[in-house]
Amino acid sequence: MPARDTVEIGLNRFARRGYDLDEVSIVPSRRTRDTDDVSTAWQIDAFRFDIPLVTSASDAVVSPATAIAVGQAGGLGVLNAEGLWTRYDDPAPAYARIREAAAGGAPPVSVLQEVYAEPVKPDLITARVKEIRDSGVTTAVRISPQHTVQLAPAVLAAGVDLLVIQGTIVSAEHVTSTGTALNLKEFIADLDVPVIVGGAANYQTALHLMRTGAAGVIVGVGADSYSTADAVLGIRVPLASAIVDAAAARRDYLDETGGRYVHVIANGTIENSGAIARALACGADAVQLGEPLRSAAEAPGGGIWWDSVAAHPRLPRGGASAPIEPAGSLADVLNGEARTADGRTNLFGALRRTMAKTGYRDLKEFQRVDLVIGGASGDELR
Amino acid sequence: MPARDTVEIGLNRFARRGYDLDEVSIVPSRRTRDTDDVSTAWQIDAFRFDIPLVTSASDAVVSPATAIAVGQAGGLGVLNAEGLWTRYDDPAPAYARIREAAAGGAPPVSVLQEVYAEPVKPDLITARVKEIRDSGVTTAVRISPQHTVQLAPAVLAAGVDLLVIQGTIVSAEHVTSTGTALNLKEFIADLDVPVIVGGAANYQTALHLMRTGAAGVIVGVGADSYSTADAVLGIRVPLASAIVDAAAARRDYLDETGGRYVHVIANGTIENSGAIARALACGADAVQLGEPLRSAAEAPGGGIWWDSVAAHPRLPRGGASAPIEPAGSLADVLNGEARTADGRTNLFGALRRTMAKTGYRDLKEFQRVDLVIGGASGDELR
Amino acid sequence: MPARDTVEIGLNRFARRGYDLDEVSIVPSRRTRDTDDVSTAWQIDAFRFDIPLVTSASDAVVSPATAIAVGQAGGLGVLNAEGLWTRYDDPAPAYARIREAAAGGAPPVSVLQEVYAEPVKPDLITARVKEIRDSGVTTAVRISPQHTVQLAPAVLAAGVDLLVIQGTIVSAEHVTSTGTALNLKEFIADLDVPVIVGGAANYQTALHLMRTGAAGVIVGVGADSYSTADAVLGIRVPLASAIVDAAAARRDYLDETGGRYVHVIANGTIENSGAIARALACGADAVQLGEPLRSAAEAPGGGIWWDSVAAHPRLPRGGASAPIEPAGSLADVLNGEARTADGRTNLFGALRRTMAKTGYRDLKEFQRVDLVIGGASGDELR
Amino acid sequence: MPARDTVEIGLNRFARRGYDLDEVSIVPSRRTRDTDDVSTAWQIDAFRFDIPLVTSASDAVVSPATAIAVGQAGGLGVLNAEGLWTRYDDPAPAYARIREAAAGGAPPVSVLQEVYAEPVKPDLITARVKEIRDSGVTTAVRISPQHTVQLAPAVLAAGVDLLVIQGTIVSAEHVTSTGTALNLKEFIADLDVPVIVGGAANYQTALHLMRTGAAGVIVGVGADSYSTADAVLGIRVPLASAIVDAAAARRDYLDETGGRYVHVIANGTIENSGAIARALACGADAVQLGEPLRSAAEAPGGGIWWDSVAAHPRLPRGGASAPIEPAGSLADVLNGEARTADGRTNLFGALRRTMAKTGYRDLKEFQRVDLVIGGASGDELR
Repeated sequence: MPARDTVEIGLNRFARRGYDLDEVSIVPSRRTRDTDDVSTAWQIDAFRFDIPLVTSASDAVVSPATAIAVGQAGGLGVLNAEGLWTRYDDPAPAYARIREAAAGGAPPVSVLQEVYAEPVKPDLITARVKEIRDSGVTTAVRISPQHTVQLAPAVLAAGVDLLVIQGTIVSAEHVTSTGTALNLKEFIADLDVPVIVGGAANYQTALHLMRTGAAGVIVGVGADSYSTADAVLGIRVPLASAIVDAAAARRDYLDETGGRYVHVIANGTIENSGAIARALACGADAVQLGEPLRSAAEAPGGGIWWDSVAAHPRLPRGGASAPIEPAGSLADVLNGEARTADGRTNLFGALRRTMAKTGYRDLKEFQRVDLVIGGASGDELR
Repeated sequence: MPARDTVEIGLNRFARRGYDLDEVSIVPSRRTRDTDDVSTAWQIDAFRFDIPLVTSASDAVVSPATAIAVGQAGGLGVLNAEGLWTRYDDPAPAYARIREAAAGGAPPVSVLQEVYAEPVKPDLITARVKEIRDSGVTTAVRISPQHTVQLAPAVLAAGVDLLVIQGTIVSAEHVTSTGTALNLKEFIADLDVPVIVGGAANYQTALHLMRTGAAGVIVGVGADSYSTADAVLGIRVPLASAIVDAAAARRDYLDETGGRYVHVIANGTIENSGAIARALACGADAVQLGEPLRSAAEAPGGGIWWDSVAAHPRLPRGGASAPIEPAGSLADVLNGEARTADGRTNLFGALRRTMAKTGYRDLKEFQRVDLVIGGASGDELR
Repeated sequence: MPARDTVEIGLNRFARRGYDLDEVSIVPSRRTRDTDDVSTAWQIDAFRFDIPLVTSASDAVVSPATAIAVGQAGGLGVLNAEGLWTRYDDPAPAYARIREAAAGGAPPVSVLQEVYAEPVKPDLITARVKEIRDSGVTTAVRISPQHTVQLAPAVLAAGVDLLVIQGTIVSAEHVTSTGTALNLKEFIADLDVPVIVGGAANYQTALHLMRTGAAGVIVGVGADSYSTADAVLGIRVPLASAIVDAAAARRDYLDETGGRYVHVIANGTIENSGAIARALACGADAVQLGEPLRSAAEAPGGGIWWDSVAAHPRLPRGGASAPIEPAGSLADVLNGEARTADGRTNLFGALRRTMAKTGYRDLKEFQRVDLVIGGASGDELR
Repeated sequence: MPARDTVEIGLNRFARRGYDLDEVSIVPSRRTRDTDDVSTAWQIDAFRFDIPLVTSASDAVVSPATAIAVGQAGGLGVLNAEGLWTRYDDPAPAYARIREAAAGGAPPVSVLQEVYAEPVKPDLITARVKEIRDSGVTTAVRISPQHTVQLAPAVLAAGVDLLVIQGTIVSAEHVTSTGTALNLKEFIADLDVPVIVGGAANYQTALHLMRTGAAGVIVGVGADSYSTADAVLGIRVPLASAIVDAAAARRDYLDETGGRYVHVIANGTIENSGAIARALACGADAVQLGEPLRSAAEAPGGGIWWDSVAAHPRLPRGGASAPIEPAGSLADVLNGEARTADGRTNLFGALRRTMAKTGYRDLKEFQRVDLVIGGASGDELR
């Protein structure tokens, strides 16, 4: 399935031209609509959500308490089964260590490596899941592909509703000479709970992950503004193009299976409400957000952002941010009235307005909105 | 009507490539002309103006007094019927509040929200319009589409010459489940005064707005340098392309109606005389200017700039600027001798020179000037 | 004569894609050569020069003394017949006024306007030309198209070798309602001295200027880094494309006349030796340099740079720079050993090396060197 | 052999569109692999290396001791036969002079010129080579094309394993009027040791250098971030395109000779592990690294970087950096565990991970990995 927008780097070596979310913008069309008439709801398997939000599994923004708060605000919180909450009985000192190291700005990666050197305790996974589950919200945790075989029993026993198997780059076909690779297809077939899996970066990987039986596929390699996958690995995924391609895979897989709709969840540099609208406009069914949630007063990282890859013991591929002051409660950040004009509060109220101003009623329709490449943005305020 | 300059973002999802004003430049041709032989006049309905200037309806730059001064300088001043002058009997304290909040730089959006929380008084609309009208200049006020039905009677009773119905994004077809949407076509048909309506962002919206009977269509979504429509809504309108498309709609509508010429008024990042020339060269009949007028000594905002969307109660989509020192009188800014080389005074004298240096006599001819994409600008001074 | 690299800005409005000098680079080919075997000589009419340098007529860098020094170093110095040296019997106080105003950085444009308000004295033109002529170097002065009729007699009587008629934008067909426009073709036909004329920005203007009988055509509108033609007039000339087009006009005119070769002299953002090489590689026969010469110890402006348009009484279109410390003598700047690696000394020694490293013997051959678009430059040092 | 991705700069003058390494990125595909199953080994002539590293011959990073350390870490160290170690019996004072001059930031080029004014002593070449050779690692030194005839005997007598003939730009056909040019083909034919030669910038030069009998060809003109070849010479080589073209030359030469495989070694702005991966993905067999090695504690320049062209007596074409603190030992920088996420330690561990995450086992396979143009990188950390 050849892509058409290619360039010839040099003699006979071609590359696709990819577009990032911030190169793509939404164009209002000839119809407008009342904001009150717009729905941002979506549903995956049996679970319905008012807003198309899946959280990143970063300890910086998700504790059991914030997972619950996100659920109550209409989204899906995802706790990291391999994060601070499952490494430490009381993670408060670990968080404190990171916050102290951030006194002069961003905490160094080496402090994260140190804090994450503590082993994961399966018992704690069970306890954390139970805490979320008891609140009545949809319960989801993330495990890495490498530890899925080992940790999945504890996770499942605890009674999650949705399992998220997520690494920077996940494929449906992992080759190993030691013979212990996870067979995703068999693993998912044996499960009772729906699985979201990723990240994937192109049409083929997305399609193969859909064929494993996953309910959702995460698109993007977690490349937020603090990611250094580019500098460290030479890997970059132009997210707008990746989402469009995964949406094409979704359509082809729907046809191939005669009706199985696998949800596409976008993950990457989605840091304001404009980027959320763009990701959905490119064809995503939901967005996986991390960094923007750190402005919530409840964020356990105290306004610091880091992704789990920043704590990798041998090859960290991202950094931590300096702390910021809270912009409001989690509910404010997601749906509250904005007191600033930077697109970082009332994230989903803004989405509703974009949909209204372009005349769309629901997310599925909105995926067809007109797009434009180019155009400057107001830069005085940025 | 397919546009030809498209890219494939990903599999089977295409986007137009749009160009901003600052990507497009004017190319001198083989003829030059004396500056004194050039006319920048234009006419809309029965109203003739020496310079192709319609002001933004921002309270930062337009009071009744500056609306009069703009009229006397040859342009069209537009007062906001939903701004400080119609919310407050004496707006001076409100302006003072904003200026005080700007002591340390730009005033926060929350201060604007507070000041604009005061309701609009229809009586004040009548009084302000009368004040402008009594001066003898062409009188115009702006109302939002949402409040047109409610406020138009007061506006019309006061005796405006031109009515400007302007929101960030206006369509000819607003859908509502409550059944109270403004039908622009019927509304305009019933009016005795000509209407300017917008903003529109593409060919189709512009054409549909022309078909409502409007005398002028505003192109662009008000995205000046302080706008955050991009970050908040994901909406961006490459203005050069939007102007060209609206000019195409004007041509097609002229043909469709056998001779009705609807004026295209460009609105966006037009902040120096070079940008004015570019907008007209792309096909605009006039430009709607806000931010550049704040350098006039008479500007009521005291050198601070804000657009009305910055005061939105739930979702502000722009910020305010820090104050600047005045560069001269309003007359200097528009037509006076420049004492700086930044394109921010003698705005329309500069336009005359561009027209002369490229050999054109009037604005309608100038819309055919050669354009080029690319080329650096002197950046040491910027 | 349609250009092929066009884009559609919007419906049915096309623009050429132009390239600036810094987008174009030189590619070494399979042959290299000794630097000593390279010649940078060129000849216009009967005058031969060792280096392809025509100075800008800016008072910042050209006095009678530096015009002589440039001539002795192998280039062509051009004195402004409408500058400080012909307005003031003793220009030293005027220069001092500018230098004092530059104490805190760049002198304001208003100071230049003030200093240049003094009228030009034809007697002084005669005296200055004589001073240069007596040194034995080729003598050239610049007059503006507007004052050519008035000032040319004084200039010619003084015995110049080459006359430079230069404005920002010059056309072969100036239209005026007062009937006093200069007819370049008739004027040049009547002259005994060769004329260099410009600036021109595209193929057609260049071709028409060639047809006036000029010996050389200046390409570019003087847009150095301090120019604001872009902000003030909306005019920008991608210089690489303009040079290539003028070279095409030169070729077509050569054919049309059966052998008249009109020299193309590039003028714009040419501020280091790399840019000189690029301009010649694009097809220029020589470069007109101003700003880079201000690093010479002899520069009369004392390290400050300004172009004459910065002093325009009503619409200045450029600024002045802050002063810099001298990098060496004029001879060092042009041909001396470099003690820095910024491409701003040994300007023409660097050109010789580029020609040698790409295997070319002379400038005419070098105009065929391979070019590439793209590629980053070392930015740590810039 | 015409390239297809060309633009028309102006009428009938075309240029290739070239791509730099940082415009190209690697796209994960549908397969992943264990890092432990990946090999980064390569072999040139009889010499096998664990990592595809050839050092730059810069004195800033290579002393006899670091050449040995690089060899022990699996790469190839290259000592400059015309550097400080062969100009001075004891180079320590020269290094000290540079370090002192860097007290306030980067040392000036004039200090480098001064230090390198001392003549090269052939005896010292012999001594330095012997020191490296005695350690048992593969021994390589670099000489310039200009001094090859003069210095090669001393180099060869000392017993090098590999000879590197390297200048900024080297061609297989150097033309000279003095008749003393090096004939590379004859020279190489007479040698017993394999030769690596470069830099070359395009397909043709690379192919001609391959035909001289070289075992390896260096692609790129040494344009690291501190290079000013662009500002001084107007020469820029988009490295991704140059590598791809040289790989095409390698393929064509392989066919032409029925099986001679000449290695392509990329040299330019390769300053983190991501860039290493990109260069290999474009088709390079190895990378020549200089600047990144200065973060090793053993680097003789004490954290300062300079390339030999920065010391050119008449036309320096690069600068020196300010010193940085060491990031670890040379072994750490190349293969150690990273304590930062900037892609500047564990350079080749990162490469192994990129290969694993994209499913490739060895470097030759990895040259086929999918590439994409575009996409933003995390810029908060940069």
